[in-house]
Amino acid sequence: MASGAWSLVRGAAEAVRRTPRWRKRLAFFVVGAGTLTYACQDSQVLQTCDGTGNKKKVVILGTGWAGASFLRNIDTSLYDVHVVSPRNYFTFTPLLPSVTCGTVEARSIVEPIRNIVRKKSGAFRFWEAECFKIDPKNKKVHCRSDVGTNINGSGEFVVDYDYLIVSVGARPNTFNTPGVTENCHFLKEVEDAQKIRKSVMKCFERAALPNLSEEERKKNLQFVIIGGGPTGVEFAAELHDFVNEDLAKLYPDVKKYVNISVIEAGGHILTMFDKRITQFAEEKFKRDGIDLKTNFKVVKVSDKDITMTNPATGEVTVPYGMAVWSTGIGTRPIIMDFMKQVGQEDVAAIFRVADKDNSGTLTVKKIKDVLGDIYERYPQVELYLKSNQMKGFHDLLKDSDGNSKELKELDIEQFKKALAQVDSQVKMLPATAQVAAQEGSYLADCFNRMKTCEEYPEGPIRIRGQGRHRFKPFRYRHLGQFAPLGGEQTAYQLPGDWVHVGHSTQWLWYSVYASKQFSWRTRMLVVSDWGRRFIFGRDSSSL
Amino acid sequence: MASGAWSLVRGAAEAVRRTPRWRKRLAFFVVGAGTLTYACQDSQVLQTCDGTGNKKKVVILGTGWAGASFLRNIDTSLYDVHVVSPRNYFTFTPLLPSVTCGTVEARSIVEPIRNIVRKKSGAFRFWEAECFKIDPKNKKVHCRSDVGTNINGSGEFVVDYDYLIVSVGARPNTFNTPGVTENCHFLKEVEDAQKIRKSVMKCFERAALPNLSEEERKKNLQFVIIGGGPTGVEFAAELHDFVNEDLAKLYPDVKKYVNISVIEAGGHILTMFDKRITQFAEEKFKRDGIDLKTNFKVVKVSDKDITMTNPATGEVTVPYGMAVWSTGIGTRPIIMDFMKQVGQEDVAAIFRVADKDNSGTLTVKKIKDVLGDIYERYPQVELYLKSNQMKGFHDLLKDSDGNSKELKELDIEQFKKALAQVDSQVKMLPATAQVAAQEGSYLADCFNRMKTCEEYPEGPIRIRGQGRHRFKPFRYRHLGQFAPLGGEQTAYQLPGDWVHVGHSTQWLWYSVYASKQFSWRTRMLVVSDWGRRFIFGRDSSSL
Repeated sequence: MASGAWSLVRGAAEAVRRTPRWRKRLAFFVVGAGTLTYACQDSQVLQTCDGTGNKKKVVILGTGWAGASFLRNIDTSLYDVHVVSPRNYFTFTPLLPSVTCGTVEARSIVEPIRNIVRKKSGAFRFWEAECFKIDPKNKKVHCRSDVGTNINGSGEFVVDYDYLIVSVGARPNTFNTPGVTENCHFLKEVEDAQKIRKSVMKCFERAALPNLSEEERKKNLQFVIIGGGPTGVEFAAELHDFVNEDLAKLYPDVKKYVNISVIEAGGHILTMFDKRITQFAEEKFKRDGIDLKTNFKVVKVSDKDITMTNPATGEVTVPYGMAVWSTGIGTRPIIMDFMKQVGQEDVAAIFRVADKDNSGTLTVKKIKDVLGDIYERYPQVELYLKSNQMKGFHDLLKDSDGNSKELKELDIEQFKKALAQVDSQVKMLPATAQVAAQEGSYLADCFNRMKTCEEYPEGPIRIRGQGRHRFKPFRYRHLGQFAPLGGEQTAYQLPGDWVHVGHSTQWLWYSVYASKQFSWRTRMLVVSDWGRRFIFGRDSSSL
Repeated sequence: MASGAWSLVRGAAEAVRRTPRWRKRLAFFVVGAGTLTYACQDSQVLQTCDGTGNKKKVVILGTGWAGASFLRNIDTSLYDVHVVSPRNYFTFTPLLPSVTCGTVEARSIVEPIRNIVRKKSGAFRFWEAECFKIDPKNKKVHCRSDVGTNINGSGEFVVDYDYLIVSVGARPNTFNTPGVTENCHFLKEVEDAQKIRKSVMKCFERAALPNLSEEERKKNLQFVIIGGGPTGVEFAAELHDFVNEDLAKLYPDVKKYVNISVIEAGGHILTMFDKRITQFAEEKFKRDGIDLKTNFKVVKVSDKDITMTNPATGEVTVPYGMAVWSTGIGTRPIIMDFMKQVGQEDVAAIFRVADKDNSGTLTVKKIKDVLGDIYERYPQVELYLKSNQMKGFHDLLKDSDGNSKELKELDIEQFKKALAQVDSQVKMLPATAQVAAQEGSYLADCFNRMKTCEEYPEGPIRIRGQGRHRFKPFRYRHLGQFAPLGGEQTAYQLPGDWVHVGHSTQWLWYSVYASKQFSWRTRMLVVSDWGRRFIFGRDSSSL
């Protein structure tokens, strides 16, 4: 969703900075759950950096997949690396749904950031604080520490940087639905997973209290998951397993009142997967007794019930014991502010470059001259054209007007429209751990090879200016995606429409997730957690 | 402190109930961290219970050492067992100091209560709620559940019982020192240990922030432990190890600012141990750089500093980053209320029984007639006399008046005075896990053998009434006590003045604590936590 827009902004910012009156500088940033964008490059700064031995200061905001992956791959002997994040650890987020039910423990999936860089040479600093303002003009970030009772002052401080890596991640998207923030759990951070785990146990303990009506017991054990994406579905499956494999034995009297339901605004769950997987998941959930409410849109959440609408039934209100909101993620306010600051004139700048004779309009020929570079720089344009069976950019123009007659020329408004359409409809890189990790290591690799690539640029030719870009643009290599469905069954979709579902895939899932751990320590912990669960079951302490 | 008083109450309550006009009944209760008291016994109820197969309802308040130990040993085929506790798990409290620094994980030392009884036959109920009122007259307990947002009403309910086991545990004793509850950590529950762990990491992260003065860094890393008992000393030792073995590598810049100090009102730490252990501990702490402030009494804790007094220096105020209060435990308000209800006429009743001719005074002879039974029932009387080199109860009378002339007779006020003196000065059973666990299993054993012992009583003769008590009174078997001092060294004091300190004792500590775990699950978890710590060190995530 946001990725494409940012790709444009990326180019725009670069264009703006390339005008002679601007001070040149380099700033890299990684945005969202992992959309990597780099804004502008400055060879002057680099020469200082490379020539004198005065190491440049790289500031990383955030310790998620992109930030941690960058940190692990950056050569700290070349840069002074400083990290600012509200959390002093990296979280292996794909296992968060497992933490909600105690299949693995919270601490087994986190790795302290200081551990990641401890054995590296070079200066490294970590500050546990949240960045609340980026000032790219003065190359400063303003941060605020999580102030306790025992620190004087406001806990605010300013960090200056030479290069800034923005990898603060996204936040849950509530679509401004009233009551969601107050009453729903999210599943984005380790703390969220811990809270959900505690909350599940509290629901069971409440339902088991004496002197409750049957209705009240049912209400307490009504678990509602809003959003049928991979996170919501995996959590529903985990919860179902937890209830049936462990809690049913411990709470035999209230077992019959448990109800797990998944509310999805679309017609199906797991829509980003192959239809075969969606179908398998829906059938499995049906067999398991997980209540699938598709085509229901949640419009309000109170402390007692959830209101949703459906074209057929109209508004429906159901009571609930616990609700988990997992409808996707949105951009953090700090990033939106930042984008405003650096990305005001994006499309205009591209237009200016393509319009070499300053005629105020682009002809098909003018566009064709820079099309190869546009494609390489903004792969979504090419992908979009291909997926819509268009032959070139001029097809897009035709289409953008909804007019069968092909346009010969287009002005800046039409050009904006054409690009906006690509961005609104093209399939963006998903905001997944896989994407973010690849982006982080790509960017670290760029930093590490900066000197070499300065001399021998390997990227596409520059749209503005001379020569080539130093680096090849980032290309995402999709390695497939898992969707655990509970009952030791997992769906796996490989690139190229390979689909596999079943118990064997679950074992593949175990081995891939174990191997992808950030350290041997967490690998050992996660594997021993799985072992413990096989032998003793999950822990039901309301801790 | 409270144990002796309760022993009197125990007898008192029994006496009160023994008068013919009272309906007979049986109520057992375990109070405090483990003082076992049983109130009155009713053979009628027992006959109903044993003869008809209508199982009696045993309600247990609390899931600490005494409650869990009782629960593990009670034969649930003989009784309906119901447990009310605010926590649905048992905590292996001796490992709490290890949890504060991540040497073991919080979940490794807890066992869900439902797991303990799952494989037993018979009815079992657990309610996660806190008992706020005991009504012994109507045999009811009033409970309040930890109400969340999703339960209707106040969450209050009433449970009736045939037998009540009160094992609610104690609470930290602040001696009403201002600011302690608001600003200090305690170390009584698992949640406390988790909070301390998080707080330690927060202190380090705060001290590592940029733009702080040296003074502020020092303040944040000033760890203060108030109370030089086993808990405080073990926590200080754990923290010292954590800082030196793990955090020093991760926070090299602020390592030098760390200061750990133990504030003790008395002249020495670990005063309940042999002097050799005290001395060894004090010397080790000195070598380790742990600041021992003996003869300092804390009078106030604000959010920034701690005020204490010392006869030599007067009032001193020191800033701190984190403070842990571990000066001992006190009685919960619910128990004090309960004692008032059942123990109003305790001494009076004993007096009445001994004063067979209703003369209003006891002669030495009258006392001597029941002295054997008093000794067996209230062992503290005998112990007190022995430790004060008195020959008999009449010596106590003499002493109680502060009069060298021996009293021939004494009235009820003098008798009360004499017993109160015993209770105020005698050494009580310590409020330790060991005592509580033995009391719990003793009591469960009594319940299990109730039928047999009804026919063949094995206890001392009854002070009032005929025949013998059914059960031998509880006798505590002290198996020694550990005091871990950090650096893989532990002190161990066996009964009979055997003392051992060193690395080998640490291994003894490991094996004893592993073997004492409540389940194979927690045993495996604790041992694997120790292994993980040896290999990878402790986790420093501020989670």
